[in-house]
Amino acid sequence: MELSQIKALTFDVFGTVVDWRGSIMKEGAAWNAAHGTSIDWGAFADDWRAQYGPQMNRVRTGELPWTNLDELHRIGLESILAKYGIEGIDEATKTHLVRAWHRLDGWPDSVAGLTRLKEKFILATMSNGHIALMVNMAKHARLPWDVILGAEPAKHYKPDPETYLTGAKLLGLEPGECMMVAAHASDLDAAAATGLRTAYVHRPLEYGPDRVRETKNIERFDFAANSMEELATKLGC
Amino acid sequence: MELSQIKALTFDVFGTVVDWRGSIMKEGAAWNAAHGTSIDWGAFADDWRAQYGPQMNRVRTGELPWTNLDELHRIGLESILAKYGIEGIDEATKTHLVRAWHRLDGWPDSVAGLTRLKEKFILATMSNGHIALMVNMAKHARLPWDVILGAEPAKHYKPDPETYLTGAKLLGLEPGECMMVAAHASDLDAAAATGLRTAYVHRPLEYGPDRVRETKNIERFDFAANSMEELATKLGC
Repeated sequence: MELSQIKALTFDVFGTVVDWRGSIMKEGAAWNAAHGTSIDWGAFADDWRAQYGPQMNRVRTGELPWTNLDELHRIGLESILAKYGIEGIDEATKTHLVRAWHRLDGWPDSVAGLTRLKEKFILATMSNGHIALMVNMAKHARLPWDVILGAEPAKHYKPDPETYLTGAKLLGLEPGECMMVAAHASDLDAAAATGLRTAYVHRPLEYGPDRVRETKNIERFDFAANSMEELATKLGC
Repeated sequence: MELSQIKALTFDVFGTVVDWRGSIMKEGAAWNAAHGTSIDWGAFADDWRAQYGPQMNRVRTGELPWTNLDELHRIGLESILAKYGIEGIDEATKTHLVRAWHRLDGWPDSVAGLTRLKEKFILATMSNGHIALMVNMAKHARLPWDVILGAEPAKHYKPDPETYLTGAKLLGLEPGECMMVAAHASDLDAAAATGLRTAYVHRPLEYGPDRVRETKNIERFDFAANSMEELATKLGC
């Protein structure tokens, strides 16, 4: 491929750009301190995140009408609160917990890498997070997006092809002028099937130090890097 | 009003943030030099811009299906080429001319003012320009938007109320948490009718030095400023 054909980079965000597990744990540590509890927030984050795929698939299959991630996170939250002994909290507290997903921190290399990439490419989110969530997260973590795309404008969750194709179309670009950047091979494979180029960014600690993710079979992607800074270097930024 | 209620500023762009007339004239000067012509590109820009409202109203009334600004600018271009003696140009040249609207420059204070405002507020476009146009213009003029909203996500052109209300909804905000920033009273009045707050920015030279725009009857807006930098100061940035 000719790198000069690429006009836009479209990014998976949860896990690829931000450390959702570490960020939920950080909020959880403050919760434990304030409430005198000793909740295992790493396990809490894992359980909560595990609800995400199944809940989203209820939208993808049409069982649920279009439902944004705040609403899906709320459903997931309700299903795990009792397991962790959190009971009797009010609406405002539940909303605050759900909004923790708007306050995720970037991986240490994310802002520096994105800032370099922004000089050469359009930087678009291609996340399942809705627009409000992505905007609030960008303000919190100082992520320098040019445009928020992804599931909500398409009214389709990844890996539906409509998500990627709507993003390219809204940019006025051919799919082959866009490159999907993600830490998840399944996301990249779905993007590639619609004609996007692919860049794999390895995030071994997405699921914490006890479940280090291995890199394997990534030769099929156009680029691979161990950080957003390394990706910037490989893309000539 | 309490300024602390405002979470997002939503911006008109053509005329308010960028100098469309001066930018078209700059491209026109290059055209004249390259083609040995002496076309009055200020008049050309005025005539082209004058097509914008009527063509857009054909979409607003349902005479045309959803049609983006590139397509409306193309219709307008075709209608004025002969008047200026431009004949026999090919498709690529017409596309290049239409894309001049993606290459508009900011007013001298725009980038500095927006950069200050971005520290305190979400900055969203609320333009009739479509997403691709807004993104390309932002890359060209280095406009630091947080999110591109406006006509295309709403599939309604301003001043339809749906344009403003869809923008607020996509941000997860109440209309009263958003403030419309524009150099045009009619835009601000339409935004105010949907519940947005309003800030008027005076752009006397939008239509050139021979048609200086006067400021009048702007007391009804929440804020008024003579530049984006002054607005930043007035909003405590």
